[in-house]
Amino acid sequence: MMWAVIPAGGSGTRLWPASRRNRPKFLLPIPGPQSMLRATWERVRPLVAPHHCFVVTGAAHVAAVRGELPELAAEQIIAEPAPRGTGPAIGLAAFLIARHAPGALMGSFAADHYVADPEGFRRAVRAGLRAANEGYLVTIGIPARYPETGYGYIRLGEPLLVAEGLTVHRVQQFKEKPDRATAEQYVRSGEYCWNASMFLWRVDVFLDALRRLLPEVYAPLAAIAACWDAPEGQHCFQEHWPTIPEITIDHGIMERADQVAVVPAEFGWADLGDWHGLAQLLADDADDSVVLGCEHLGLDTRATLIYGGRRMVVTLGVENLVVVDTDDVLLVAHRSRAQEVREIVRRLEQLGRQDLL
Amino acid sequence: MMWAVIPAGGSGTRLWPASRRNRPKFLLPIPGPQSMLRATWERVRPLVAPHHCFVVTGAAHVAAVRGELPELAAEQIIAEPAPRGTGPAIGLAAFLIARHAPGALMGSFAADHYVADPEGFRRAVRAGLRAANEGYLVTIGIPARYPETGYGYIRLGEPLLVAEGLTVHRVQQFKEKPDRATAEQYVRSGEYCWNASMFLWRVDVFLDALRRLLPEVYAPLAAIAACWDAPEGQHCFQEHWPTIPEITIDHGIMERADQVAVVPAEFGWADLGDWHGLAQLLADDADDSVVLGCEHLGLDTRATLIYGGRRMVVTLGVENLVVVDTDDVLLVAHRSRAQEVREIVRRLEQLGRQDLL
Repeated sequence: MMWAVIPAGGSGTRLWPASRRNRPKFLLPIPGPQSMLRATWERVRPLVAPHHCFVVTGAAHVAAVRGELPELAAEQIIAEPAPRGTGPAIGLAAFLIARHAPGALMGSFAADHYVADPEGFRRAVRAGLRAANEGYLVTIGIPARYPETGYGYIRLGEPLLVAEGLTVHRVQQFKEKPDRATAEQYVRSGEYCWNASMFLWRVDVFLDALRRLLPEVYAPLAAIAACWDAPEGQHCFQEHWPTIPEITIDHGIMERADQVAVVPAEFGWADLGDWHGLAQLLADDADDSVVLGCEHLGLDTRATLIYGGRRMVVTLGVENLVVVDTDDVLLVAHRSRAQEVREIVRRLEQLGRQDLL
Repeated sequence: MMWAVIPAGGSGTRLWPASRRNRPKFLLPIPGPQSMLRATWERVRPLVAPHHCFVVTGAAHVAAVRGELPELAAEQIIAEPAPRGTGPAIGLAAFLIARHAPGALMGSFAADHYVADPEGFRRAVRAGLRAANEGYLVTIGIPARYPETGYGYIRLGEPLLVAEGLTVHRVQQFKEKPDRATAEQYVRSGEYCWNASMFLWRVDVFLDALRRLLPEVYAPLAAIAACWDAPEGQHCFQEHWPTIPEITIDHGIMERADQVAVVPAEFGWADLGDWHGLAQLLADDADDSVVLGCEHLGLDTRATLIYGGRRMVVTLGVENLVVVDTDDVLLVAHRSRAQEVREIVRRLEQLGRQDLL
């Protein structure tokens, strides 16, 4: 059995108006019926002893996270005083785990990714834990199926071991989100995986890497962990946390560490960053429409994503649309413009419409 | 000064989901801010003495009509026991007017038509009343500007008189809604008007025509009128009304009477039968979008009609759509399919969704 941390941050601006500041992507029932956070927890649960999971989230979302995961104890849900990226969030969890089990295996799993095949996911985790146990910092990679420019890539190095029918490779290189031509070349080569930002390691190995590579993160986290259970614990947390620089685990640790491995595995993973991607993922056929969360009556409707709630949505003679119906805002957009939803959010911010953000 | 009747019937199925059984077209704020019924009354009011107007409507709508026209007395709003078309509704009003003023001039004005230029409308009415005073049954015609297939047409006959700068003509013939080719021929000829279903006549002339042409309507109405103020008035009304056949004034009287005249006049009239027609009427330019009743933020949005309420509507990269946002249903349709909104209503009926009709 392993320990787990679920960093639950980010807002998912491109999924506005379903996602809002007070209802970030990981709280949305996409694709439903449960929230992405709850689906993440249920996916991980068979690998984790009951109280060996932490969720690190913004203070504003603690109540919602508790509502989604009532089986977690209060001390398993950690409220960041301010967002600092995945590096400090995962690092803090590692320190807290080390207090109980310094040599434990640990995994980190983003709260807002989609996985179609949870058992396939767990197989990949079990394979990765084999390498983690041998001292590797392990990431899970998704063999790149098409030239997606919205994901980071990982170039596979030599094979290290085989477990659960999967081959774990050394990582040759992490690559930033590529342009289209580069992405096409990556896919053609067959040597690249998408970076799914799921990590596995021994806590001692990770904390050692953190100490060497990010001392400016390590030191304040060590101070916070040292007084965690003391009466001044919260005060200490609030005092040190803001001094920590913002950094991701990918940039801060994985791209700079030596013993890094990747498990390429296919389990229907997707980031679901925008409405078009969601529609693409959920439609069996490119012409199919997808309806989430509401009643729908469609006459002559093609390739349209409908995300709704209370109201019935009726569509007539339309195609390639995204219709997102919430209590206070309705969005109707062409699917090809899904990335520009961010622009709408920016526009509303300029207009002072905080109520809609 | 004249008397007036406003028959407020019909449901306006093609304006669903804004129009419903309990919120027919004449109660909608199209184009707003007031309801079509209230706009009709305010348009007619300068021509009518305070208590010389009747509204004939379905029993289910009496309360709503009172709310829209609080200045009318209770007895001016007549609840039909069952819908019977404009013939009986207008006929009943004529009988009730005749009890006070048997030789009065009277006009009938549909409650759900749009008029851009109310003063132009009143000029046409005043011209028509001149011919009505001479014993003609008069209708107001709108010179056909384009080959609309959704309206009935009137072929102009010889000129009868000039008043208010308008020429009143004898009617040569009423024509049913034509096919496209016929409509084009009508428009080319310059001899045709659209039938706006507005009527002007002397009450005695009209009742005489009703007695001769529709005795099966005249007789029960006469019976109802005879006991209108008696204690058994309501009972008599409820008893006789259902025996009256359903018929419109156009078919029952105007198309069959001898002395029929028409005032061709241009005052921005439209029937606003469907969403596309409404968009066409209200957009200055064919590419313009039209927003009614809600906040709208549009990015790269063309030729789209948005009819909303409480919610903000945001559109991105769309064109030629109709978006109708109500409390319990949302409609997104291509403008070219506006006529098929009726089909949706039929479909919902089949599905037993009375709650949405």
